[in-house]
This record gives sequence, structure tokens and C-alpha cells, in this order.
Amino acid sequence: MSRDGFAPDPAFDAGSGFAADWSLCHVRLQDDARFPWLILIPRRPGVVEIADLAPADRALLMDEIVRAGDRVRDMAAALDRPIDKLNVAALGNVTAQLHVHVVGRRRDDGLWPDPVWGRPGATPWPDQTRARLLALVGG
Amino acid sequence: MSRDGFAPDPAFDAGSGFAADWSLCHVRLQDDARFPWLILIPRRPGVVEIADLAPADRALLMDEIVRAGDRVRDMAAALDRPIDKLNVAALGNVTAQLHVHVVGRRRDDGLWPDPVWGRPGATPWPDQTRARLLALVGG
Repeated sequence: MSRDGFAPDPAFDAGSGFAADWSLCHVRLQDDARFPWLILIPRRPGVVEIADLAPADRALLMDEIVRAGDRVRDMAAALDRPIDKLNVAALGNVTAQLHVHVVGRRRDDGLWPDPVWGRPGATPWPDQTRARLLALVGG
Repeated sequence: MSRDGFAPDPAFDAGSGFAADWSLCHVRLQDDARFPWLILIPRRPGVVEIADLAPADRALLMDEIVRAGDRVRDMAAALDRPIDKLNVAALGNVTAQLHVHVVGRRRDDGLWPDPVWGRPGATPWPDQTRARLLALVGG
């Protein structure tokens, strides 16, 4: 737990890894080689819904959602798999701690046009690819 | 089409109806009696991703997402079915025009914890109930 009382729910460790700390959010790379996919977790303790964030933090979250979309496009370009659409979602039915998924989707991604959540089939990124993607997110 | 060149994609008519015009968004009530569910469509022509919105509009969208969550809770309270979680998502894989779903979820809603999109089983609201819900959204 950090000095401000924030810690990401340990449940996130099962499918994702730390990528960066931005102004508001702890940023994670989802370890699913089908999709360039980031998870933004505001570093505020006890926050479940977007409405639980102070207005200034909501503005930061919006900025970081847009930034995450740019990074997802950067990842897709590095993989030579440009995306057709971003999917942005704050669900939290499984892990309540507020987090926002930013997922790059392609028409040929195997699940299109369905959502990605709650669907099996994830395989981890190869280690070298994961390292490349993490370098893009940190920048 | 309105004077500013905006019109909601006709595809939205299949599953939802007009509820209100807020500062930024054309607001629709999803006609699915399983969930209190609003759809926010920014009244800006040609917008597909959140990043396509001007920064001032992004701030309005964030405000209206929070407001829609309040209205979903109002609807759930009127139905005596308080919700456990909000699901907020901008997907757009089927209908590209930028729109944000704000859905009230309950652990006993039949799809929990899965997402609601792309899943069959919607039945329309009874007419009287729909009218009550629309009155809550407009206010």
C-alpha cells in the first residue's frame, strides 16, 4: 500500500501487470496477446464508482482515458495490427475497485463485435513483446 | 438531423427510445426491462471515439456520465430494485457513433457478473413503467 492508502486489488495480478504510474492512475497491461489492453486504476483508496472521485480527479481520469487510447494505438502500431475501435469500460462486477479498461479491437480479433470481458481464451504476451509494450506505456 | 448536423444513428431506434436532451448528450432509455439503462450520445456530428470530442465536451461527457448514474439509481429506486454496481462503457463495435452506456447491475439480474452487451433476452418495459422511468430521466 502506498502512503496515500492506495493499493491495487490483488485480483488484478492474475491477468495483468504494472505498466506505469500516471498523474491519477496506476496503469496495468492486460496479459492477453489477443488485444492491446490497458487498465487504469485511480490511486484513491475506497473508490468504486466514477462518482466517488472528486471532480478534479474525474477530469484527470478523462485525460488518462484519452492518453491510454493513444498508447493502445501505439501498441497496435508496434505490433503492426492497427485497431478498428477502442472499447472503454468501467464495469467492476468482479473486482469492485474502480478501474477503467481501454481495449483495442479489430474486426478480426476473434471476439468482435462482442465485449472482451468474461470470455476465455487469453494467452500471455511473449516476454519480448510484453517488454516492448510496457516501454510504450511508460513513455 | 438537428441544425448542428447531429442525428442519432437510426440503429438506436431498434432497442431504445429518446429520453432527454442534456447539455451535451442526446439521452436514450434502453428498452430492456432487466436493467435501468441509459445511453448517452454526444450531439456532435462524426464523433466515434472519446478523443474525437473537444476537451470541453469531454468534461461535459464526464459530468453527464455521473448524472446518468444518478438517474439510473433513481430509476432503480422507483422500481424498488436498488443496484449493486454501475457499468459504464463506450464500445461502439456494432454502432460506431460515440455513445456511452450507463447500466445499473444487480447480483440477481440474470447476467451478473457478465457484461450486458451482445446477450439476448431483452423484453420491453411495460408502457406505464417506461413512462415513469422517462419522467425520472427528463428531470
